[in-house]
Amino acid sequence: MIPASLISKKRDGIDLGKNEIESFFSGYLSGMVTDAQMSAMLMAIYFNGMNEDETFALVEVMLHSGTILDFSKSKRFVADKHSTGGIGDKVSIILAPIMAAAGIKIPMIAGRGLGFTGGTIDKLECIPGFDTSPDLALFNKWVDKSGYSIISQSNEICPADKRIYDLRSKTGTISSIPLICGSIMSKKIAEGISGLVLDIKIGNGTFMKSQDQAIELGSWMKKIGHAFNIKTDIVYTNMDQPLGNYAGLSCEILETIDCLKGSGPDDLMNVTLELGTKLILQSGLVSNRSSAIDLQADIIRSGKGLRTFESSVEIQGGKLDEFYYQTEPKHETFVYPTREGVINNMDTESIGWCLVELGCGIQSKDDTLDKTAGMEFLKKTGDKVNTNDPVYRIFCSNKTALETVSKSLSSTIIVSDKQSNNKPTIY
Amino acid sequence: MIPASLISKKRDGIDLGKNEIESFFSGYLSGMVTDAQMSAMLMAIYFNGMNEDETFALVEVMLHSGTILDFSKSKRFVADKHSTGGIGDKVSIILAPIMAAAGIKIPMIAGRGLGFTGGTIDKLECIPGFDTSPDLALFNKWVDKSGYSIISQSNEICPADKRIYDLRSKTGTISSIPLICGSIMSKKIAEGISGLVLDIKIGNGTFMKSQDQAIELGSWMKKIGHAFNIKTDIVYTNMDQPLGNYAGLSCEILETIDCLKGSGPDDLMNVTLELGTKLILQSGLVSNRSSAIDLQADIIRSGKGLRTFESSVEIQGGKLDEFYYQTEPKHETFVYPTREGVINNMDTESIGWCLVELGCGIQSKDDTLDKTAGMEFLKKTGDKVNTNDPVYRIFCSNKTALETVSKSLSSTIIVSDKQSNNKPTIY
Repeated sequence: MIPASLISKKRDGIDLGKNEIESFFSGYLSGMVTDAQMSAMLMAIYFNGMNEDETFALVEVMLHSGTILDFSKSKRFVADKHSTGGIGDKVSIILAPIMAAAGIKIPMIAGRGLGFTGGTIDKLECIPGFDTSPDLALFNKWVDKSGYSIISQSNEICPADKRIYDLRSKTGTISSIPLICGSIMSKKIAEGISGLVLDIKIGNGTFMKSQDQAIELGSWMKKIGHAFNIKTDIVYTNMDQPLGNYAGLSCEILETIDCLKGSGPDDLMNVTLELGTKLILQSGLVSNRSSAIDLQADIIRSGKGLRTFESSVEIQGGKLDEFYYQTEPKHETFVYPTREGVINNMDTESIGWCLVELGCGIQSKDDTLDKTAGMEFLKKTGDKVNTNDPVYRIFCSNKTALETVSKSLSSTIIVSDKQSNNKPTIY
Repeated sequence: MIPASLISKKRDGIDLGKNEIESFFSGYLSGMVTDAQMSAMLMAIYFNGMNEDETFALVEVMLHSGTILDFSKSKRFVADKHSTGGIGDKVSIILAPIMAAAGIKIPMIAGRGLGFTGGTIDKLECIPGFDTSPDLALFNKWVDKSGYSIISQSNEICPADKRIYDLRSKTGTISSIPLICGSIMSKKIAEGISGLVLDIKIGNGTFMKSQDQAIELGSWMKKIGHAFNIKTDIVYTNMDQPLGNYAGLSCEILETIDCLKGSGPDDLMNVTLELGTKLILQSGLVSNRSSAIDLQADIIRSGKGLRTFESSVEIQGGKLDEFYYQTEPKHETFVYPTREGVINNMDTESIGWCLVELGCGIQSKDDTLDKTAGMEFLKKTGDKVNTNDPVYRIFCSNKTALETVSKSLSSTIIVSDKQSNNKPTIY
């Protein structure tokens, strides 16, 4: 294998064979292919794409670079959920205990904040003692005990993806559909699941801003899922404004608990129940949509969902009683609209960057997270506002950040005289 | 400067500013930009090209990464010649002493064999003792003494280019017009020259196989030359068959000496004199084409060209008397056509690879050059042949290589009943 000749082939738009993909990507792990050669290949893939066989071969290499979990003896249906990321999206943390309570096993490997989007793992780590990095044996045990467990990416699972993802983030090759698919799907397949629901976000608070791209991504994910014998459903949801009433770190865990107590906001609960319905129907526990919704509603109403969450937190070492004492931010302020009218647009990506600035995300190696930081959305798109009604309550423990962000945030909403057509939460 | 964001800009087809090009490429030299980031940028440039300002900025960075020679006080016109490479192309070694004898100073930095094409430096190093790696002070002295000197790329000249070229050869990003221009022109400008003639090869024995690409490359080179106040002429020449009657290592030095003695083959001499004419007219030594040709013919006829060559070899430490004893290959064989007729095509790239196989080029780190290796072209395109007339005489000191190559070579010519239209040597 001559790396430069395979790179040139892909550069010239010639499809690579399964063996060629395999030898190039395995060669990267063994040191025969350098970082420079891999990043040239990734950029050539960015421009020329990958066909189905190439993408499957890529998934295979990633998958077999590490351990693959085995739930083949599980009596319960084993499944997972993945979202392409957004602002205020705490659905995984709400959905997993509901699914576990329904009898579906969820071995979830989740991510940290990336760019302007929040990270499930960062939020869960606000709970004192909560361990997100067990070895796989312990992870298995946790899944068995609680019915679900959420951990961060392990070195044992798809190490090839870990190295390539790191390279992509430094070389401008993140937003390539086959590379995104390869990265996400290899990790999901390695979880040993039989079912998967993907929440593909569309809107101004996502990496994929166009609907066409999102749909293409979805259809690729579905193809790969099926090729690996995983029942795969796609749900396209709106990320033209934050999801739920809170975004940040500890505040999203508090909102999760509200949801599991039955008092979650409509948009967030609609997305959660829609994704849950897909998994329940995949599992065959019930045979129609309305029974699936009823089952989830019962789990929430009876407190079974909340208890499953609390016991999972405890099993992973988390101390919820200590958590409640630690969520209090030192400073808070309100952001008001500059005119009265109706909110017609929220610039969700900018809101995300404001959250990063407040301390909910990391931009450079020296940054640390401020677990108390976040914001409450007092008004959302379609709501009437006047200049005395705050739109945002923002809070954190760093006064300078608070002041900077409060200035930036006022330009994230567009207030008009008339309401424009609202987009649905679920497409 | 965030490297990934500049890469993404170029990837998305957004032009980079002069400062951005400068900080990215200088950042590479200072270690802020990694090999992986540079190769992703090079691939993005491969796909999206560079505009005039970007290309000039790239040339500037390369140029100022090292020493720039200063011939501003030279009373003689200082110039150089560059060829894009081919098979049997020993023009530089013939032309430089003729130019020096005419009164034009030639400080030439030349290359080694690359892929299937031969290298001027590899050929010159067949002469025992010939030093191609002096420091720049010595190089200057040699140019002053002999009127010309040919050396290999120095670490002092355009070190940025050296590093980037190495990366390009490993990452499939060689054949990009702005990168080729940046690489060639920065080195030529660093020679401190006032005139330049470029021999752009077109045909099946070159890297640029299409005429359109070659013309685009030429017009870019000319633009850059002029932007840096260098009189720049382009000559497009035929590389649909080897140039001259010999290709290889020592045999090309022997053919050079034949040319300087006045008995060079027509095609090779036509190209040499055409390039020489351009430089002589640039220098203003004579004012028209026919006088320029006469001047060169006189230099050859009088033996002044040969004496200039011999004295330059001596000054660079070369021992021509020893050289003549060392050129004898251990083995030789002949290759015959499989039918009688007229040679209508020679697959020049394949002939080049055969030369590499014989020992005239290096494919992997463990290969060594066989200075005695090469081939004589007994017949060329347009010549009548029959099955008793050999087309090639091939020779080297490795019997196995000779046997392998003699088999491959028979398929490099197409013999037909009728002669097709021959292409001119100079377009």
